[in-house]
Amino acid sequence: MATSLKSIRSLVPLLDRVLVQRIKAETKTAGGIFLPESSLEKLNEAKVLAVGPGGLDKEGKRLPMGVSEGDRVLIPQFGGSPVKVGDEEYSLFRDSELLAKIKE
Amino acid sequence: MATSLKSIRSLVPLLDRVLVQRIKAETKTAGGIFLPESSLEKLNEAKVLAVGPGGLDKEGKRLPMGVSEGDRVLIPQFGGSPVKVGDEEYSLFRDSELLAKIKE
Amino acid sequence: MATSLKSIRSLVPLLDRVLVQRIKAETKTAGGIFLPESSLEKLNEAKVLAVGPGGLDKEGKRLPMGVSEGDRVLIPQFGGSPVKVGDEEYSLFRDSELLAKIKE
Amino acid sequence: MATSLKSIRSLVPLLDRVLVQRIKAETKTAGGIFLPESSLEKLNEAKVLAVGPGGLDKEGKRLPMGVSEGDRVLIPQFGGSPVKVGDEEYSLFRDSELLAKIKE
Amino acid sequence: MATSLKSIRSLVPLLDRVLVQRIKAETKTAGGIFLPESSLEKLNEAKVLAVGPGGLDKEGKRLPMGVSEGDRVLIPQFGGSPVKVGDEEYSLFRDSELLAKIKE
Amino acid sequence: MATSLKSIRSLVPLLDRVLVQRIKAETKTAGGIFLPESSLEKLNEAKVLAVGPGGLDKEGKRLPMGVSEGDRVLIPQFGGSPVKVGDEEYSLFRDSELLAKIKE
Amino acid sequence: MATSLKSIRSLVPLLDRVLVQRIKAETKTAGGIFLPESSLEKLNEAKVLAVGPGGLDKEGKRLPMGVSEGDRVLIPQFGGSPVKVGDEEYSLFRDSELLAKIKE
Repeated sequence: MATSLKSIRSLVPLLDRVLVQRIKAETKTAGGIFLPESSLEKLNEAKVLAVGPGGLDKEGKRLPMGVSEGDRVLIPQFGGSPVKVGDEEYSLFRDSELLAKIKE
Repeated sequence: MATSLKSIRSLVPLLDRVLVQRIKAETKTAGGIFLPESSLEKLNEAKVLAVGPGGLDKEGKRLPMGVSEGDRVLIPQFGGSPVKVGDEEYSLFRDSELLAKIKE
Repeated sequence: MATSLKSIRSLVPLLDRVLVQRIKAETKTAGGIFLPESSLEKLNEAKVLAVGPGGLDKEGKRLPMGVSEGDRVLIPQFGGSPVKVGDEEYSLFRDSELLAKIKE
Repeated sequence: MATSLKSIRSLVPLLDRVLVQRIKAETKTAGGIFLPESSLEKLNEAKVLAVGPGGLDKEGKRLPMGVSEGDRVLIPQFGGSPVKVGDEEYSLFRDSELLAKIKE
Repeated sequence: MATSLKSIRSLVPLLDRVLVQRIKAETKTAGGIFLPESSLEKLNEAKVLAVGPGGLDKEGKRLPMGVSEGDRVLIPQFGGSPVKVGDEEYSLFRDSELLAKIKE
Repeated sequence: MATSLKSIRSLVPLLDRVLVQRIKAETKTAGGIFLPESSLEKLNEAKVLAVGPGGLDKEGKRLPMGVSEGDRVLIPQFGGSPVKVGDEEYSLFRDSELLAKIKE
Repeated sequence: MATSLKSIRSLVPLLDRVLVQRIKAETKTAGGIFLPESSLEKLNEAKVLAVGPGGLDKEGKRLPMGVSEGDRVLIPQFGGSPVKVGDEEYSLFRDSELLAKIKE
């Protein structure tokens, strides 16, 4: 999805949505050899850039979000809404679609 | 969807619906060159023109809306109900279908 | 759907149903030229002729209706139950299917 | 659906079901000419012969029915369970499937 | 569904299930002529042989059943779980699938 | 589904699941003649080997189970999760999928 | 799903998700003969490596999890999200998808 945004920082997710950027696979091996980008497997890790205020329960109260800005997360193989800012690609997921946090 | 409306301002969205107008891509490059309209990618940004009073919960109370008139929002790639007033096109989305607010 | 009704006024919608009649496009241009009916685009505007008492919530209480008799409304492109009285066509929609009120 | 019933009056609808009989189109024009049955459009009007006690909400309480025995109603084009008693055909609808009452 | 049961009486329906046996069409006309079984239409009437204790609401309370052992009922054209005991066929329906009681 | 289990007794069903073993049809007739296994119809009867603690309602409380260890039950024709221990086959059903208890 | 993780221990499941590793079939028979890996049936047993904090009910409270770290569980034949760390494969299931605990 194309946008005219200058910076991804201007996106403020709504409800329980989470804005993430997929982490790119290393293009250099441990031994220092550069790998062609086409040989790289797409990683299912992403960094959380922004989180919405939480979805609404039936009485209109916010449900807490499971992740915070700065978290690294495991994202599902399918789903999410793509967003393009300049040449960079981002995705918006619903909080409950994220599989796990990554702590390293 | 064709209408006989004179002005889009006469539309008052019902329930949790949000009336938006898609933002058009610049037809001129930064360097001042005009681009043919066919070369332009459709942007997924829109301006909120009017918002409904909010959907009803199971007890008939209004659920709060996430966006307000004048907001710029990121809209999903698919969905929404098109409305045509004169030559201009607009869309109606449900509040929960909007992905993010845009703050710039 | 054919009926033997003498007048559409004898229909009293049930629950959250809304009886509407689509507004016909002008067959005469501003300049006074008559247009053949086949050239006219179908409008998605309708006039509300009658509204039901409201749907029931889980405890059997009525949920309020969003529109009233006499309102002009924007109707969705698809859906609704057609009703024919004589040569005139009408539609029944659920209250929540109507997109917007039209105030002019 | 065939039955061995002697009279439709022995059917007592369960829950929110409504037993109706479709009203037949006049086989004689206003001018007294008889029309062949095959030329007649099927009407979507029906007479309510019996109503169930109402569906159950989540706590086991009955939800009120929208129609009563003797009402004339507008029925949807599709749906309903057919019942045949002798040569006559009847239908069972759920209360919420009926579109409108007819008051004349 | 085959069983090794000696008697259908040993089946105790669970939750909101109702064990019924379809009523067979008369193989003899009023005038005393015997009809071949293949000419008989399958009736949608059944006798209730046993009823379950009722389904559970969200708090684990039983919802009341609409029919009782010994009732004659109108069953839907499709659905139900067949059970075979010896050469006899029976069906299990959910309480809410039964259309009407038959009182004669 | 293959397992490395030594005994089916080590399986403890979760939530509202019920572990059952289908009852095999007699391979000997009443008259003492042995029947080839291929001629036997699969029975829809099963013995309950273990039951889970019950599903959770919306507040996290357990819903009661309808069957107990040792019960004989009528199982549906389709569904259930197969489990294989050694050469024996078992199935896991949800409590609400079981049709009836068998009392003989 | 590829990851750049150094250790599966850095994955912290969200909501009601459970991280498991499938148990591999023995590649040596009881008699000490080694079996080729291709002849081995995939087992539906898994070891629980980490569990999420529990899903949220409608009021935002956590629902209890049915399994704990270290449990052995029976997993369904289909479903789950695969995760790859180095050459090892893992899966994430929702708590309610797990069929049974294994106690040996």
